[in-house]
Amino acid sequence: MSLYPKPANLLIERLAKLPGVGKATAQRLAFFILKSDQNENIVLANAIREIKENILFCLQCGIMSELEVCNICTDQNRDSNIICVVEEPQDIYSFERTNSYKGKYHVLGGVLSPLDGISPDDLNLDNLYKRVVSGMEVILATNPSVEGDTTCLYLSKKLEELGVNVTRLARGLPVGSDLEYMDELTLVRAMEGRTSV
Amino acid sequence: MSLYPKPANLLIERLAKLPGVGKATAQRLAFFILKSDQNENIVLANAIREIKENILFCLQCGIMSELEVCNICTDQNRDSNIICVVEEPQDIYSFERTNSYKGKYHVLGGVLSPLDGISPDDLNLDNLYKRVVSGMEVILATNPSVEGDTTCLYLSKKLEELGVNVTRLARGLPVGSDLEYMDELTLVRAMEGRTSV
Repeated sequence: MSLYPKPANLLIERLAKLPGVGKATAQRLAFFILKSDQNENIVLANAIREIKENILFCLQCGIMSELEVCNICTDQNRDSNIICVVEEPQDIYSFERTNSYKGKYHVLGGVLSPLDGISPDDLNLDNLYKRVVSGMEVILATNPSVEGDTTCLYLSKKLEELGVNVTRLARGLPVGSDLEYMDELTLVRAMEGRTSV
Repeated sequence: MSLYPKPANLLIERLAKLPGVGKATAQRLAFFILKSDQNENIVLANAIREIKENILFCLQCGIMSELEVCNICTDQNRDSNIICVVEEPQDIYSFERTNSYKGKYHVLGGVLSPLDGISPDDLNLDNLYKRVVSGMEVILATNPSVEGDTTCLYLSKKLEELGVNVTRLARGLPVGSDLEYMDELTLVRAMEGRTSV
């Protein structure tokens, strides 16, 4: 139905393409934008238009950066002997917020997924193999999903051939969770990975 | 915290100003936009920038329009003897979707709200008084809220002085609702407004 004037329809249609934004939300956002100050709208529009132009991805590790090589890669205070491998650029911010990891990062840019046609050639692997040296530690921090685990398995084999000490994140109960509501697979992993007190 | 590169931060900040968009959603949208095709982003940015420039508000009734006087106001097949008064331009689409109302509309552009400093002078009332003629029907379709009811009361007095037949929307049980979960005030209104079967 095209009850709305054309420019409103166009905006609603475009907003509805964003993840988690349905038609009703898109309408609400469009009417909000229509009522907002035009200067605010222009700033938002420019931010959308320019983000891809202004953000580079570090040539070495693949995280978002304003420079060709990112601040983390060039930081002398960080331990170059540990590399944490993540799926997407935004994943590293989760670790950075903990303020406890002081190694370097490497972004794969996805996970192995034969069904979606994503093979090792599609991931940022050559750069990773170039960065690792025998004896260093590589933490495989892919998501705890089927694809993440597959990628983890594939990478651990490849990296062990290069003499790297490969580790992966612990599986178990998240802090603050409730045993009563925990899913079975998490409980199995927590049981398997039990540690002495 | 400004972990993200500046252009990403700017976009996240701006997206988080939209209604119903918190910081986490804004981050998700920003990363989606960063991964999207740049042409798509430009179309979205242009739609945001241009909506206020391309949409006019009908000089007569105040609804969104691409022309100075809207299609509904100029439609000869619509009954000019009934005007449905709503708060906001988007409210009329709710009625249009029902495909059953064939009169005209009038948008107030808000409701009376002394606390927010909104007085009758701030509403699109002069145009309404000019449009009504003695003997016609005006349906006051403000929202069933305190401000909506206040506005309704104020308008009904003013319009009755002009010899207008003033009505308002029925209050009662929404279709498909469940008596068990209905709030008390709605039940009181439904009881008060009971009709013979």
